Amino acid sequence: MSETPAGVAREVRLVATPEGLPEAGHLAVVEAPIPVPKPGEVLVRNRWFQVFPSLRTVIAGGVPGAPFPPLHPGDTLFGPAVGEVVAAAEGEDGGPRPGDLVFHYQGWREYAVVPVSAPPANALPDPAAYLAPGATAYAALTAVAGLRPGETVFVTGGSGAVGSLAGQIARRLGAGRVVGSTGSAAKAGRMVAEFGYDATVPRDATLRERLAEAAPDGVDVVVDNVGGEQLQAAVAAARPGARIVLIGTLAAQLSAASSGTTAPVELDTFQLIVKDITVRGLLSVDERTGAEWVERFGGWLRSGEITFPHTRIAGIDRAPEALQGLLSGRYVGTVVVEL
Amino acid sequence: MSETPAGVAREVRLVATPEGLPEAGHLAVVEAPIPVPKPGEVLVRNRWFQVFPSLRTVIAGGVPGAPFPPLHPGDTLFGPAVGEVVAAAEGEDGGPRPGDLVFHYQGWREYAVVPVSAPPANALPDPAAYLAPGATAYAALTAVAGLRPGETVFVTGGSGAVGSLAGQIARRLGAGRVVGSTGSAAKAGRMVAEFGYDATVPRDATLRERLAEAAPDGVDVVVDNVGGEQLQAAVAAARPGARIVLIGTLAAQLSAASSGTTAPVELDTFQLIVKDITVRGLLSVDERTGAEWVERFGGWLRSGEITFPHTRIAGIDRAPEALQGLLSGRYVGTVVVEL
Repeated sequence: MSETPAGVAREVRLVATPEGLPEAGHLAVVEAPIPVPKPGEVLVRNRWFQVFPSLRTVIAGGVPGAPFPPLHPGDTLFGPAVGEVVAAAEGEDGGPRPGDLVFHYQGWREYAVVPVSAPPANALPDPAAYLAPGATAYAALTAVAGLRPGETVFVTGGSGAVGSLAGQIARRLGAGRVVGSTGSAAKAGRMVAEFGYDATVPRDATLRERLAEAAPDGVDVVVDNVGGEQLQAAVAAARPGARIVLIGTLAAQLSAASSGTTAPVELDTFQLIVKDITVRGLLSVDERTGAEWVERFGGWLRSGEITFPHTRIAGIDRAPEALQGLLSGRYVGTVVVEL
Repeated sequence: MSETPAGVAREVRLVATPEGLPEAGHLAVVEAPIPVPKPGEVLVRNRWFQVFPSLRTVIAGGVPGAPFPPLHPGDTLFGPAVGEVVAAAEGEDGGPRPGDLVFHYQGWREYAVVPVSAPPANALPDPAAYLAPGATAYAALTAVAGLRPGETVFVTGGSGAVGSLAGQIARRLGAGRVVGSTGSAAKAGRMVAEFGYDATVPRDATLRERLAEAAPDGVDVVVDNVGGEQLQAAVAAARPGARIVLIGTLAAQLSAASSGTTAPVELDTFQLIVKDITVRGLLSVDERTGAEWVERFGGWLRSGEITFPHTRIAGIDRAPEALQGLLSGRYVGTVVVEL
C-alpha cells in the first residue's frame, strides 16, 4: 500500500479578481485536504513551481481564444511545476515510482494529483531547470525563425525567463550579434556578462535610437516578449526578410494602465510588406522540438556553455508576493518557488 | 539596319505631387523624343501597361525602404508593361527579334528602351494577362501560406487585380470555402459568378459580423490587399494556425484622409500569440514560383478553368483618368491601358 501523507496541505487561491495589477489580498495561501489520486493518477509532492507573467491575464479573466481557462475567485492557481511522486498509482505497473520527479502544470500547491503519463523530470542536472521556458526560446530561434549563423538577433525583455535563455541560445546557434532590451542597468550588466548579449538597449523613449546604434545593419530575427513600443522598434529596425516571433506581451502585463487581457500595438503594414517581414505568434512548442531542447539544454548545462538564470523564492507563503514582484519587474530569469 | 520610327511619342508624367488622391492636373500626357537604345538594349513599342494602386504611394513620395524609387514632378510614371520589339539590338545575336513581345517595367509610355534580357511574353493566350499580378496571388496561397485542400480562404479586396485571381486560384487549389470582401454589390455578384468566391462580405461596419456568418468556422488563410479594419477583421476570424499574407494596403491608398505612404493598423498581439497566427508581408515572388505560375496560368486559361479578369482602357490619353478611376474603386480586375 502507498503511504499517502495524512492531513492538509497549502495552496494559493485567487480571492478576488484584481481590477489592475494584483496586490496583497487578491491571492491567499489556504489549507485544503491533500487530494486523493483516482485510477490512472499519482499523488506528487511539489518541489518547485514557476511564477510567470501570463498569470496576470489568467486571473484578470483570461484572453478570448486562449487555451488555458481563466481563473475565478476561489480557484487555485496553476502553472509549470516539478514534483516528487509520493506513491505509485494503484494497479499501474509502468507508471512513475515513488521518489521519481515529474513535470506537470499543477503548480501553486504543495500536493498535486497528476496523470501517470506526466513526463519524467530527471534529464537536467537541476530539476528546477525544467521550469525554464527555454523550449519556447529555442523553438522561436530554430523551428520558427530559422536563425542562420551570422544573423543579428534582438530580444525584447532580455533579462526575463525567456530572454535570459534566448540570448545564450542565440549565441550557441552562431548569431553574429545579440541585442536585448531591459528596464534596468543592473539587469543590462548581467545580460552582457552572463546571458550572451553583445549590447543592451533601454526600455524608454530612446529605444529606437539606441537600437539603431546597437544593431547598425538592422535585425534579422526578433524574439519579442514585450510587444507594444518595443515591437514597433523591432519592426523599424528589421532588415528585409526579418522574422519576428511573438512570445509574450509584458508591455500589457506589467502595466497598471492596461487590462492585461489585450495587447494592442499599431503596426505599419506598408513596412511589413516592403521589408518582407514575417510576424508569427508562438503559443506552444511541438513535441519534437521540446525533446530536442531538453537534450541540448542538458548537454549545454553540463558542459557549462549555458546557465539556467533564475530567481529562487523559498516557500509557498512568499509565492503571492513573488507574483507581485515579477509584475513589477523585480526579478531576473525564471522565477521559481521552492517548497 | 533597324527601322526606328522617327519623331516623337507620348508618355505620362507627374506634373505635381498630390497632397491627397491624384486629380486632373497632377499627371499629364506629354510628347517626348522616341528613346534610342544603347548596346544591350532594344526599343519596344508598348502594347499594354498596368494601372496599379501602389502608384498612389510612389507619386506621393514613396515609402521608406521600398525597392522602387519615388517619383518627382517631371518624372515619367512606370509599371508592368508588355511591348513589341521594334528592332533587333545592334550586335546582339541571341536577343529578342522584331515583333517579339517582351515583359518589362517601363509602362506609361508608347515607346520604351529595355534590356535585351527582358523576358518574353508569349506563353499566355492573351499577352495582356502578363500584367495580372497573379504570380503574387499564387505565391501567397502556395509558397507563403501553404494552403491545404479543404481550408477556408478570406481575400480582402476580392474584386481587384490580385483578388479576382486569388479567388479562382484558391478554388483550383482545393480550398474548402472562399470568402472575399468588396465595396459594391455589382462587384460582389461578379466575385461569386466569375471569380471563384462562395460568399462576399461588405466593406463597411458590418464586416466582422458578416465574415463570422460567411465563415462560421473561421478562416485559415488570408490574402490581404487592403489592411486596416479588414486586416483586423481577418485576425478576429482567424483560426488557430492561420496564415495571413499581406500584399496590399488599399485602405491607405484609396483613402483621401491618408497620406498614402503609411498603412497603420492596430493589432492585438495576444490574439496573434494565442491563435499561433503568422502575418507575412509579401513583396516579390521568387523566380521559380513566378515561372510555375505562368505555366499553370497558361494551362488554366487555355482549358477555361480560370479567366483573366480585367478592365481595358483604350489609349494613353485616358491613362491619367484611369489611375483616378482605380483609386476611386471604379474597376474590376487588372486595369490595362491598351495602346
